[in-house]
Amino acid sequence: MNHFGKLFSVSIFGESHGESVGVVIDGCPAGMPLAVEDFVKDTERRKGGTQKGVTPRQEEDLPLFKSGVFNGKTTGAPLTLLFENKNTRSGDYEKQRAVPRPGHADFVANKKFAGFEDYRGGGHFSGRLTLCLVAIGVVAKKIARDLTIHADIISIAGERDLEKGLQKGIDAKDSVGGIVECTVSGLPLGLGEPFFDSVESLLSHAVFAIPAVRGIEFGTGFEAANMFGSAHNDAIVNKEGGTASNHAGGIVGGITNGNELKFRIAIKPTSSTPQEQQTLNWETNQVESFAVRGRHDLCIALRVPPVLEAVTAMVLVDLLLREQKIKRIF
Amino acid sequence: MNHFGKLFSVSIFGESHGESVGVVIDGCPAGMPLAVEDFVKDTERRKGGTQKGVTPRQEEDLPLFKSGVFNGKTTGAPLTLLFENKNTRSGDYEKQRAVPRPGHADFVANKKFAGFEDYRGGGHFSGRLTLCLVAIGVVAKKIARDLTIHADIISIAGERDLEKGLQKGIDAKDSVGGIVECTVSGLPLGLGEPFFDSVESLLSHAVFAIPAVRGIEFGTGFEAANMFGSAHNDAIVNKEGGTASNHAGGIVGGITNGNELKFRIAIKPTSSTPQEQQTLNWETNQVESFAVRGRHDLCIALRVPPVLEAVTAMVLVDLLLREQKIKRIF
Amino acid sequence: MNHFGKLFSVSIFGESHGESVGVVIDGCPAGMPLAVEDFVKDTERRKGGTQKGVTPRQEEDLPLFKSGVFNGKTTGAPLTLLFENKNTRSGDYEKQRAVPRPGHADFVANKKFAGFEDYRGGGHFSGRLTLCLVAIGVVAKKIARDLTIHADIISIAGERDLEKGLQKGIDAKDSVGGIVECTVSGLPLGLGEPFFDSVESLLSHAVFAIPAVRGIEFGTGFEAANMFGSAHNDAIVNKEGGTASNHAGGIVGGITNGNELKFRIAIKPTSSTPQEQQTLNWETNQVESFAVRGRHDLCIALRVPPVLEAVTAMVLVDLLLREQKIKRIF
Amino acid sequence: MNHFGKLFSVSIFGESHGESVGVVIDGCPAGMPLAVEDFVKDTERRKGGTQKGVTPRQEEDLPLFKSGVFNGKTTGAPLTLLFENKNTRSGDYEKQRAVPRPGHADFVANKKFAGFEDYRGGGHFSGRLTLCLVAIGVVAKKIARDLTIHADIISIAGERDLEKGLQKGIDAKDSVGGIVECTVSGLPLGLGEPFFDSVESLLSHAVFAIPAVRGIEFGTGFEAANMFGSAHNDAIVNKEGGTASNHAGGIVGGITNGNELKFRIAIKPTSSTPQEQQTLNWETNQVESFAVRGRHDLCIALRVPPVLEAVTAMVLVDLLLREQKIKRIF
Repeated sequence: MNHFGKLFSVSIFGESHGESVGVVIDGCPAGMPLAVEDFVKDTERRKGGTQKGVTPRQEEDLPLFKSGVFNGKTTGAPLTLLFENKNTRSGDYEKQRAVPRPGHADFVANKKFAGFEDYRGGGHFSGRLTLCLVAIGVVAKKIARDLTIHADIISIAGERDLEKGLQKGIDAKDSVGGIVECTVSGLPLGLGEPFFDSVESLLSHAVFAIPAVRGIEFGTGFEAANMFGSAHNDAIVNKEGGTASNHAGGIVGGITNGNELKFRIAIKPTSSTPQEQQTLNWETNQVESFAVRGRHDLCIALRVPPVLEAVTAMVLVDLLLREQKIKRIF
Repeated sequence: MNHFGKLFSVSIFGESHGESVGVVIDGCPAGMPLAVEDFVKDTERRKGGTQKGVTPRQEEDLPLFKSGVFNGKTTGAPLTLLFENKNTRSGDYEKQRAVPRPGHADFVANKKFAGFEDYRGGGHFSGRLTLCLVAIGVVAKKIARDLTIHADIISIAGERDLEKGLQKGIDAKDSVGGIVECTVSGLPLGLGEPFFDSVESLLSHAVFAIPAVRGIEFGTGFEAANMFGSAHNDAIVNKEGGTASNHAGGIVGGITNGNELKFRIAIKPTSSTPQEQQTLNWETNQVESFAVRGRHDLCIALRVPPVLEAVTAMVLVDLLLREQKIKRIF
Repeated sequence: MNHFGKLFSVSIFGESHGESVGVVIDGCPAGMPLAVEDFVKDTERRKGGTQKGVTPRQEEDLPLFKSGVFNGKTTGAPLTLLFENKNTRSGDYEKQRAVPRPGHADFVANKKFAGFEDYRGGGHFSGRLTLCLVAIGVVAKKIARDLTIHADIISIAGERDLEKGLQKGIDAKDSVGGIVECTVSGLPLGLGEPFFDSVESLLSHAVFAIPAVRGIEFGTGFEAANMFGSAHNDAIVNKEGGTASNHAGGIVGGITNGNELKFRIAIKPTSSTPQEQQTLNWETNQVESFAVRGRHDLCIALRVPPVLEAVTAMVLVDLLLREQKIKRIF
Repeated sequence: MNHFGKLFSVSIFGESHGESVGVVIDGCPAGMPLAVEDFVKDTERRKGGTQKGVTPRQEEDLPLFKSGVFNGKTTGAPLTLLFENKNTRSGDYEKQRAVPRPGHADFVANKKFAGFEDYRGGGHFSGRLTLCLVAIGVVAKKIARDLTIHADIISIAGERDLEKGLQKGIDAKDSVGGIVECTVSGLPLGLGEPFFDSVESLLSHAVFAIPAVRGIEFGTGFEAANMFGSAHNDAIVNKEGGTASNHAGGIVGGITNGNELKFRIAIKPTSSTPQEQQTLNWETNQVESFAVRGRHDLCIALRVPPVLEAVTAMVLVDLLLREQKIKRIF
C-alpha cells in the first residue's frame, strides 16, 4: 500500500513515464496558505542543482492543485497535488525490457506483477515518485512551522569533502553513494509511543520509502555498539530534559526528549552506472554484459536532502497532531 | 499505539513490576498446534543463557494461554498470551523516583504521562516487554514454517570475538553494546510494496520497537555509501532472480528478490552501568552523581537475537498473508 | 479521513465546483483490462437516466486515467482516476453564503473548517463525490467477477409503485426519499470476522459514506425486532449451508453463510426542495425564509443504486482478498 | 480483526467457555481514576437485571486489571481488563456439535475455521464477549465525562409496553426481539469527517459488532424515506447550530451538528428459542428437529442498552481525541 499516516495521511501514485505522479494528502489543517511558489525551492533542491553528478532531466516540476485548496488556502478536505510527466523518452525502454538492470526493481516488479508492470523508466518504482514525497514535505514543513528540519549530505563515496567524493566517481567512471544527516530542532518533549509507534519506528518506516536507502541510525547509531554505557548515556542537566551530550539523537524509549533530533541514512551508489554490468537476458536466458545509456545521476545522494526532510516532516506532523501540539485549524 | 500489523496483528501490554505482560495476536491461522513447550527455547534464549554479562533475574517466563487455543490448536480467534510477573522487587524504585536514570525512559515517561506512569523498573518501557515480542515470534515462526530465520551477535564492544568484548566491559566495570545480524532464507520473491510498505520500511518499523536499537542496515548497509555502483550492484544470474553477490540483502525496490534476506542492527550499551553517572534530581533540582544498583545486564545485546528473530517473523507473516503465500488454515 | 480498506484501499478527493474529483485505488490486482468505456454504464446510471426527478446537470462523467494503467491493463500500482469539473456555475453560491441550507453540510462545514471550506455547491461534501464511489465500484465489480451485485429502488415516498411516488413529490412541489435494496449472489461462505470486522460492520461503514443515507438493515432488518425467534431463524438444510429462508440476509455471526446477501438502505428526501425553508442568516443573525433555486434532484434515491453497488463491491473485494478468494494477479 | 479505533484503540478476545474474555485498550488518557467498582453498574445492567426473559447465568462479571493502572489511576500505557470464566457447563456442547443451531454462528465458524473453532457455547462468537464491550464503555464514558450517553429499549416484540412484549414471548414459548434507542447530549459540533469517517459510518461499524443487531437508523431513519424534504429538513435557528426539529439525529454531512445525537438499532429475537427447530445434522446429513436446552435469554435486547452505550462512547472518544476535544492527560 502506498499509504502512510494516521492523522496526516498520504497516498502517492504514478509512474515515471506514465501520465503523471502525485499525492493525496488527507488531514492537512484548514486555513493554511498554499501556493505553487511554495514548491519551487524544494523541488529545485531535489533536482540536485547544477552540481556535477546530477542528471540533466530538468522538467518543470511544479504541482497542479487538483483539490483541497480554495482562495489560496487549504480547506481541510483532501489536498491533491499532481505533477505531469512531460520530458520522457520511453522508446529506449522497450528494447531493453528483456534485460533487467541490476540494482533496479525491473526484475522484482516483473515477477511481482506478472509482467503487467509499467516498465518504462522504472515505472511506479521510479525515483520520480520522490517528487511526491518532496511535495508532502513542503506541506508538512509549512504545517510544522515551529520546527527547523534540515538535511545535509555529510559524505560522498566515503569522503567528507564532497567535491573529492564526486571526483572519485568521475575518475572511476562509476556511480557513488553517500551519507545524509537530518537534524530537527524545536521538537516538544513527549512525541512517540513506546514500542511499535516509537519515533524511530515511524521515521525509519517513512525513510525506507525513499529509494536507495540502505541504513538508518539515530544519534551515535552503529558507533553506540562500540561504546561503554557510561560514555553513551546522556546526563540530564535541567528540568526541561536538556542533556550534556546527545548520543541518543533526541529520542529515549522511543519518545522525543526535547533535545535535537538527529539521525543519518546511507544512500547506495546509483544503480545506473556508466560501467558495463552483468545481468540475465530473459529472452536468451543468458547472462550478458550491458551498459546503461541515457541520463542518469552519478550520485543520487545529492538529491536526497529535501526528500529526507520531507518524510521527516510528514512523520512529525502526524505525531504532533496525535499529541495535540498542532491545531486542526492553521 | 502498541499495535502492529495488517493481517497478522498484535497488541502488546504490561509493565515490568505490574501484574503481568502479554500480547493479543489476531490473524493467526486456525489449526496450528501450540503448546507452552513451544515457548521454552526462545524465552530461555532471551534470558541470555548462563553467559557472563546477563542479569540473574530468572523468572519462569512461560505464557498462560488466555484465549485462542482449543484442544491444543489455534482456533483462528485472537490468541492471548499472558506472562505473570512474580520475581519483582519494587521497593528500590520508590526512593529513586526523583532521580531519572540517564539513557532510560524515566524522564520522558514522567513528562509524557504527567507523572501517572508506572515508574517501577521502567514500567511499560521495560525490556521485560520483549518477552511479549519473543512470544509473538514463537507463533510467527511456527506459522512461517518454510522460512529459516536466524539472528546472531556478530560483535560486542567492537570485538568479533565475543568473549573478548564482554571482558572489555568487565575490566572497565561498564556496560557494552553489540551488533546483531539476522538472516532469513526460504523467502519467496515478491513480498513488500514499493514505497511505504517496502520490506525495509516494515522491518525497521518493527525492529525499532526493540528497546536499545540505535540503527539498522540492510545488505551492505552503511558501507554501500562508500562503494562504487558497479561493485554494489548484484548481477542477476538466473531466472529465479539469483544474484552473483548479495549486497542488497535480498531486497530491491522494497521487494524481496528471492535471495537471502540479511540485515544488521546496532544495540547500545545497557543504560544501567555500574559506573557512577550524572543526572538531575527533580526534588533538589541539582545535578548529582548516582550509581545504579541491583540486577542488570552488562550487555543486553546478548538477549536480542530471539527478539530480533521474533519481530522479523512477525513482519514476514503479515506480508506472506497479504501475498497469499500462507493459508488461513495451517 | 477519506480513506477506506485494508487490502483494497481507496482515497477519494475533490470538490463540486473545484477543478476535479477523483480517487486513488490501491491494491487492485495486476493484469485486469480497464478502459474508459467500462465506466460509461454506471456513471450513466448514476445520472438517474432521463427520469423525472433528476437534475439536468449532465456532464460527461468519464475518468481520466492518471496512473496505474498500462497497455490497457492495471499494473498493480495505485490506480488514479480523475474526473474534471466542467459544467459548474459557482456565481450563485457566493451570495448565498450567509444562508446555510437546511439539511446540507453548509453549516457544519463552516464551523468544522473555520470558514476555510470550499462552500461552492457543497464543496467536498457534494454528491458529486459519489462519482468517485461509482468509479471504485466499476473497478471492484470487474475484480469480483464471480459475484452478481445488484441494487434497486424498492420504494419512493413510501410507494412501491415508483412512478406514483415521484408523482407525489411533483404534486407537492417537494422532494422525496426512497428505499434501495442490494442483493449479492455468488459469495463464498466465510467472509468477515466476528465483532469489529463483521460483514455488516464493514458494509454499513462504507454505506454511510453515501450522502443522504439514514439507515441500513440486513435481511429482515427492523422487522426482525417484531418476530419470534422460531420464525426468524433460518433452518440450515444442506452441507453448503443453504437455508430454508433467508431472514439473516446471508450473514450470521458477522460472517457470510453462503446464501444471498441482502440489505436495504433508507435515503432521505433531497435537502434542496423547491419549497420555501427557514434558516439562519449568519450576517443578519435572523432566521429567514429562502428558496433553493437552480438544478436539483427531486429524488436523489434515483441515483443511488450504482453507488450502493459500488461501495458493496469495494467492501467485498477487500474481504475476498483477505480470505484469499481473489488472486493478486487478475 | 477484533480491533477498532485510531487514537482510542481496542482489541477484544476470548471465548464463552474458554479461560477468559478480555480487552486491551490503547490510547486511554493518563491520570484517570479507575477502580473495579466503576464496572459494577454496567456489568450488572448487562445481565438484564432480575427481569423475566433473562438467563440465570450470573457470574461475578468484574474485571481483573492486568496492565495500565497504577496507584488507582490509568498510566497512559495499554489498559488490559480480563474477565475469568467460572460458571460454565461445557459438557452439553460436545454432543450437540454435529447439530449447528439455526441463527447461531456454529455453522459459519465451523466452515471458516475448518473445524478448529472453540465451539463450546458459541466460543469466540458468544454474547459473553459483549462483556468486553461493556468494559470498554465504562472506560470510555469516564473519559468522555462531558457527554451524557443513554440507551433504552423502546419496544419489545413490537410493543412499546415492554412487559406486554415480553409476555408475548412467554405466552408463545418463543424468543422475542426489540428496538434500542441511544441518545447523546453534550457533543461538540464538528466531530466526524465527510464520507468514510462520517459519524454514522463509525458508529454503525461499531454497533454491528454487537451480536444480534440487524439494523441501524439515525434520526428519523427509515421513516425519512417516506417524508417530504420540506418536512425532513431541520431549520437552523441559532448561531450554535440549534435546529427547530432534529430529524437528522444530530448529524449532517457525516458531522455532528451540535444537537442531540439520536439513533436506533434493531435486535433480532434470541436465536436460542424454546421452540423446536429444524437444522442439518452433519453426521447423518439429515435435516432433523432439535430443541435448545439450558440457560438462555428470552429477549437479548434487554441486555443491549449498556453495550450500545459502550460502543457509542468508544467511537465518540476516538473522534473527540482526533478533534482535540479531549486531552491526553485526564
